[in-house]
Amino acid sequence: MTGDFGFNARIAEPLVKLALQEDIGNGDITSEAIFKDERGFGFFVVKDDGVVAGLPVVELVYHILDPSISVELMVSEGATVKKGDRIIEVNGPVQSILSGERVALNFLQRMSGIATLTSKFVRAVAPYGVRICDTRKTVPGLRYLDKYAVRVGGGVNHRFGLDDAVLIKDNHIRAAGGVKPAVDAVRRKVSFTRKIEVEVQSLAELDEALEADVDIIMLDNMGVNDLTEAVRRIRSVSPHILIEASGGITLDTVIRVASTGVDLISVGELTHSVRVLDISLELQENWI
Amino acid sequence: MTGDFGFNARIAEPLVKLALQEDIGNGDITSEAIFKDERGFGFFVVKDDGVVAGLPVVELVYHILDPSISVELMVSEGATVKKGDRIIEVNGPVQSILSGERVALNFLQRMSGIATLTSKFVRAVAPYGVRICDTRKTVPGLRYLDKYAVRVGGGVNHRFGLDDAVLIKDNHIRAAGGVKPAVDAVRRKVSFTRKIEVEVQSLAELDEALEADVDIIMLDNMGVNDLTEAVRRIRSVSPHILIEASGGITLDTVIRVASTGVDLISVGELTHSVRVLDISLELQENWI
Amino acid sequence: MTGDFGFNARIAEPLVKLALQEDIGNGDITSEAIFKDERGFGFFVVKDDGVVAGLPVVELVYHILDPSISVELMVSEGATVKKGDRIIEVNGPVQSILSGERVALNFLQRMSGIATLTSKFVRAVAPYGVRICDTRKTVPGLRYLDKYAVRVGGGVNHRFGLDDAVLIKDNHIRAAGGVKPAVDAVRRKVSFTRKIEVEVQSLAELDEALEADVDIIMLDNMGVNDLTEAVRRIRSVSPHILIEASGGITLDTVIRVASTGVDLISVGELTHSVRVLDISLELQENWI
Amino acid sequence: MTGDFGFNARIAEPLVKLALQEDIGNGDITSEAIFKDERGFGFFVVKDDGVVAGLPVVELVYHILDPSISVELMVSEGATVKKGDRIIEVNGPVQSILSGERVALNFLQRMSGIATLTSKFVRAVAPYGVRICDTRKTVPGLRYLDKYAVRVGGGVNHRFGLDDAVLIKDNHIRAAGGVKPAVDAVRRKVSFTRKIEVEVQSLAELDEALEADVDIIMLDNMGVNDLTEAVRRIRSVSPHILIEASGGITLDTVIRVASTGVDLISVGELTHSVRVLDISLELQENWI
Amino acid sequence: MTGDFGFNARIAEPLVKLALQEDIGNGDITSEAIFKDERGFGFFVVKDDGVVAGLPVVELVYHILDPSISVELMVSEGATVKKGDRIIEVNGPVQSILSGERVALNFLQRMSGIATLTSKFVRAVAPYGVRICDTRKTVPGLRYLDKYAVRVGGGVNHRFGLDDAVLIKDNHIRAAGGVKPAVDAVRRKVSFTRKIEVEVQSLAELDEALEADVDIIMLDNMGVNDLTEAVRRIRSVSPHILIEASGGITLDTVIRVASTGVDLISVGELTHSVRVLDISLELQENWI
Amino acid sequence: MTGDFGFNARIAEPLVKLALQEDIGNGDITSEAIFKDERGFGFFVVKDDGVVAGLPVVELVYHILDPSISVELMVSEGATVKKGDRIIEVNGPVQSILSGERVALNFLQRMSGIATLTSKFVRAVAPYGVRICDTRKTVPGLRYLDKYAVRVGGGVNHRFGLDDAVLIKDNHIRAAGGVKPAVDAVRRKVSFTRKIEVEVQSLAELDEALEADVDIIMLDNMGVNDLTEAVRRIRSVSPHILIEASGGITLDTVIRVASTGVDLISVGELTHSVRVLDISLELQENWI
Repeated sequence: MTGDFGFNARIAEPLVKLALQEDIGNGDITSEAIFKDERGFGFFVVKDDGVVAGLPVVELVYHILDPSISVELMVSEGATVKKGDRIIEVNGPVQSILSGERVALNFLQRMSGIATLTSKFVRAVAPYGVRICDTRKTVPGLRYLDKYAVRVGGGVNHRFGLDDAVLIKDNHIRAAGGVKPAVDAVRRKVSFTRKIEVEVQSLAELDEALEADVDIIMLDNMGVNDLTEAVRRIRSVSPHILIEASGGITLDTVIRVASTGVDLISVGELTHSVRVLDISLELQENWI
Repeated sequence: MTGDFGFNARIAEPLVKLALQEDIGNGDITSEAIFKDERGFGFFVVKDDGVVAGLPVVELVYHILDPSISVELMVSEGATVKKGDRIIEVNGPVQSILSGERVALNFLQRMSGIATLTSKFVRAVAPYGVRICDTRKTVPGLRYLDKYAVRVGGGVNHRFGLDDAVLIKDNHIRAAGGVKPAVDAVRRKVSFTRKIEVEVQSLAELDEALEADVDIIMLDNMGVNDLTEAVRRIRSVSPHILIEASGGITLDTVIRVASTGVDLISVGELTHSVRVLDISLELQENWI
Repeated sequence: MTGDFGFNARIAEPLVKLALQEDIGNGDITSEAIFKDERGFGFFVVKDDGVVAGLPVVELVYHILDPSISVELMVSEGATVKKGDRIIEVNGPVQSILSGERVALNFLQRMSGIATLTSKFVRAVAPYGVRICDTRKTVPGLRYLDKYAVRVGGGVNHRFGLDDAVLIKDNHIRAAGGVKPAVDAVRRKVSFTRKIEVEVQSLAELDEALEADVDIIMLDNMGVNDLTEAVRRIRSVSPHILIEASGGITLDTVIRVASTGVDLISVGELTHSVRVLDISLELQENWI
Repeated sequence: MTGDFGFNARIAEPLVKLALQEDIGNGDITSEAIFKDERGFGFFVVKDDGVVAGLPVVELVYHILDPSISVELMVSEGATVKKGDRIIEVNGPVQSILSGERVALNFLQRMSGIATLTSKFVRAVAPYGVRICDTRKTVPGLRYLDKYAVRVGGGVNHRFGLDDAVLIKDNHIRAAGGVKPAVDAVRRKVSFTRKIEVEVQSLAELDEALEADVDIIMLDNMGVNDLTEAVRRIRSVSPHILIEASGGITLDTVIRVASTGVDLISVGELTHSVRVLDISLELQENWI
Repeated sequence: MTGDFGFNARIAEPLVKLALQEDIGNGDITSEAIFKDERGFGFFVVKDDGVVAGLPVVELVYHILDPSISVELMVSEGATVKKGDRIIEVNGPVQSILSGERVALNFLQRMSGIATLTSKFVRAVAPYGVRICDTRKTVPGLRYLDKYAVRVGGGVNHRFGLDDAVLIKDNHIRAAGGVKPAVDAVRRKVSFTRKIEVEVQSLAELDEALEADVDIIMLDNMGVNDLTEAVRRIRSVSPHILIEASGGITLDTVIRVASTGVDLISVGELTHSVRVLDISLELQENWI
Repeated sequence: MTGDFGFNARIAEPLVKLALQEDIGNGDITSEAIFKDERGFGFFVVKDDGVVAGLPVVELVYHILDPSISVELMVSEGATVKKGDRIIEVNGPVQSILSGERVALNFLQRMSGIATLTSKFVRAVAPYGVRICDTRKTVPGLRYLDKYAVRVGGGVNHRFGLDDAVLIKDNHIRAAGGVKPAVDAVRRKVSFTRKIEVEVQSLAELDEALEADVDIIMLDNMGVNDLTEAVRRIRSVSPHILIEASGGITLDTVIRVASTGVDLISVGELTHSVRVLDISLELQENWI
């Protein structure tokens, strides 16, 4: 059900069906008019360097569309590829191959784009032992695949949604009358199986959070000096707390943030502003 | 049912419900634990210059989530905005406002990003009377909204999917044994209400297409010289044919392409590699 | 995915599942109580002369209901059959064969009824080179299959729905202030990949439409003299325009309409008032 | 929830949504391009004599499409109407009125066609105190509405599907080894709340059925003489048994069948070969 | 499609998919992180004496989750089992076996609990030839499986829902102005294929019901003396009427009720207050 | 969106619709035949002592079924009630009130049964400061409502499903080659926002778990002496770790378990073997 990065076809299936319905609707009128039983084969070829993610989605697209198409993966999920590399071979009825081409590429290009960008961040901070994580700034409907692609790129996932971990932000703190009362309210009402994270935007807020005994502290939009000091204070009080830096961090700034000793850096750009990895399907000339 | 850009809430509703289900799942555990009946208000504020798209989606998000929230639009859909501009006021239960914040922003930021980029292309080619159009390189599941945002940004839409217009590409031509037989096959089998477009990659292919009497010709990946010559040939033979240029066209190259006299330029980047417009929700301090 | 008439099982599948759920609900209580493992076979036999349509739907019904049933087609989709002809052999568990009988027949009889009537119109106008097309007067939920059956009967399809081609009618013209402004509004807002059709009900309206440069003109409810004159005017001005006659045309009147030189005749009766082709399932006596 | 004929909007709603989605898809591109905020009103007018059924479906169509449209019923469900009668007034945004027109008419015309034909059968047999009932030969997906329309036309419903009443046919009898064993098997396995009907095709089979103590006997495809004799035998043995005549009965033959003394006559034609009642929407000239 | 107790996998499938989605959501994060390709096998073992129901649901769970798992049934559906008995062997990828364990058990334990309790009632009344039946007091969403499990336990089913049989209760009688008018109203409006049951709570009400000629009489909450007298009156008037006793009947009281000569005893507890049969999955030590 | 116990109507709505569809199907034929426009009112009355849960679900049932019914809550969610207490007043069309009665009661009785049993456990352990929590042994499809009812009864929730917290059991440990490697594998692959719980069945396993630095330790099926010793060891090493006792704990044994100093006791019986709280709807005599 999974593979190394935990891909679950059963979860992805409704998304793939939605995408096929959206694109093909009442039929691929061009291909249906022109093709008969021609069979052929072709390759998905990358047109730029990057990291491939989404191979099992391509398998799923063609399996749902036409099980008689065979899909052979020529590289592993997560492989680093170079311009010109062939990554998938498809073989079967030409009409079906073409009818599914755009949907397959739309998934594959976006997911590879996410994995490629993630891997750049991951490599940048590798010397510091810091992990790169995603956010909830994903495209509506694609969160499962967006977050999967982050894992393929070497990143780790933050919470999936609002229901599986607690993140207390400034408005929550204000409503509760402080960090401590907010955390207490959560402790009373939320399953003890959930971690509690608090977002702080200053060292003063940090001190308040440290008294509340939380699991994760997010240092939001702090400069490097404040980050360094924040890490020092947290480590001295409570070495178990995970420290996450957040807030508009880019490839240009990520190394400096990583150098402050935080555990995790969350990057919204990984999923909210994805540049696709250019990939195309090249059908071979001879078919039968 | 629509507004100036033809937004249809009935079509968008399933996407919004999917996005809310995805993010909120079994509940916004943080906000539900902390908030009681506090009411408050706040503003969606843009953090960068751009064109706003997606306002009716934000209305829909909050209407579905909690109809007691009022959503007041402070600018019109498609408005050009500057960093710091307030664009929406929301007013109602703070818990619901926060529970819907991320979903609302994920839609609004992406759609505004599409509209903003589209408007740059549109302005660039305005002197040439050329129109900018989208492609099917959209995010799976969001095609309706992606294409709507292109219209908000001043662009026009290409076909929605494989079922509503014919686009004959090289593989179709090969299977049929030439442009003419391909067009003939389509004419026999496809509804006469569909337009027929043919993609050509060289002047030789163009000449073949011109003999087939089609509605639209797509000039794919041609240089400026070939484009100019292609336009000349088409206009001289068949002034009714719409001419579309396509293939990796960027803001840097679009003006030169526009200068060749084509009618339309399609740009995949409008929807496949969207940089979001930065927008955030700022809750006001005083609530009750 | 298709066959000669472009049948797409993936699109039809939800309709078939809906029909099975509707008829079988919580179980075929009669057959489940009486049958054990008996296997048998039988034939779908036509009880009247006609044209068969819907064979792949019968395959789908049984495939979804019980994949262990084999369905052998004894004629081709679109075959002209005579009373008494066997058209399908089914073989498998008797209980499943009977549980799916009614659903299979309900589809098959209606679709064959449509194909049969369509083929009568098609044959009637064949000498004139005119094509017969359908309308949107289909049974709610069955448009895909109704229009497919029209193709099987030799007809062609008009637009599928309101979203894939423009048809400007009198109310649109009135709202816009004339044919020209209506067409202009459409040109501004609708994808350039859509054809534009205008419905006219008099020669005066026709002249206005001719100035607006549209793709198709529908001559609605005109007498033969007006039709002849309308065809003459359109051909003299704009030979590319497709001409459709419409409005209560029956088998009695269709030849006269065809003789006026129009390209297409649309017939609502093809799908709105279908007389089924009588077909029944005859199980053979010996089973095991 | 119902009205005199038991219409349940909650059950009909998914069918109406399916029909709207089918017809409008990604938008009514013509009307959306041309109309702004014009409001108008119009009437649904019958073009032939008949019985009206489906008024609450029209209300539902417009309520779902655009709740700002008011729908005023000018006749009662089941009313006998004459050519030219206005039956519904709609008032609201012209765009929405037109976007829903076809879907509303497709339901209304078919349902009124069913009610009209049913009422002809009902009137024909009225002198004999016989009731007319439907069959499972309905259009896939529309059984609820088809059967409702039969009630509106004065008919009664046979079982809804395979799960709510037992009907033992020849194949069941053969598999069980006789009528008695078939009925016994059903008694053992099927809920005691279900009635048991047996179909017989000869007087010999009838005698067997009479020994099995069933609730309803269907006399299938018998001539008038056999029917008369069958009724006599059943009445003499078991006055509680309901007697149904079935098999290709038409308006021409129904009176003779009714005269034999059966309780019910089932007519497949009521729903399998429906001639629509011609109805159209006439928008008034002046709108604002 | 069925087996001895009429299990229909097509009907159960959506419930199983719902349950898997509910439990596994975005993935079984523990098992996905730890397991690779290990294969293993294990047994479902009962931990208490009882009657097994739900075996085909377990097959369905694993078939949907991972078709590569083999599920071998070691006892028949409805088997009486003792503590320690192995009832199912599963063999396949350990990860999938574990991911589906809880869902499989939640179905199997509840259904076996229902069958076990039902069988106790059935055995208790066996000497009296009385049948035990269920009610509509089932868990929302599981009625099909709850009622199936009652059959497996030897019970029979009452009506499935409000739409397949008539049950006239005191409020209906009051609204209609008596039993007779209520039955008459039903006869006029409800399909003749439906049985009519009346609930009476006293001998006076019973006499009224006897005049109305119904199919089933439910004696609700009567003492043994009244039950005996009621049975006597009904049998003397109308031997065909089925007699059902109802109302808080327990294992302690059921024998006395059975001794009164009623045909059926309905027991809400069978499905509304189910004690699960304790079953667990025991994976074997050696896997590969 | 919530109330004190975090009830989310948007999440519950599909379950309620499913239940209404299941029970009402194609219509409440009895009530639809008998009632016209009678309006009335009545009360939901408890027939036994207990804790009420599910009031907002009853509101939802009637809101979906017929918004013209008013539902007035006469006690608060979670109220302790005595036999005879009125808890809800409903007022509106009698037909709709009756059509929704069974579905409303099926939810309300089960949820109140869960809350009642939970509250008994909670009161029993109150002197020890121990919390009672649920398990995943819920009825398929109802987990959200089952777990909500546990909260209403004073309990707390364990994880919702397999995707929101890690629980490492013996098979996981075996596959990984020990507790430490299992925890390490999870740390590498699972979001850092997830807590990690390990299940141990002996003191030896406990020591291994203590070295792995987890968030929660479940002591499964241990006797009181081992529990006491386990708590001592955990507290001495790692005071932050939450300690959960689990395994067949009943009202009889729960106090002794609580006395060992564990933080939480999980009880499968709360949701897997629910005895409903007896509640009925009593319509008042006078209606109009």
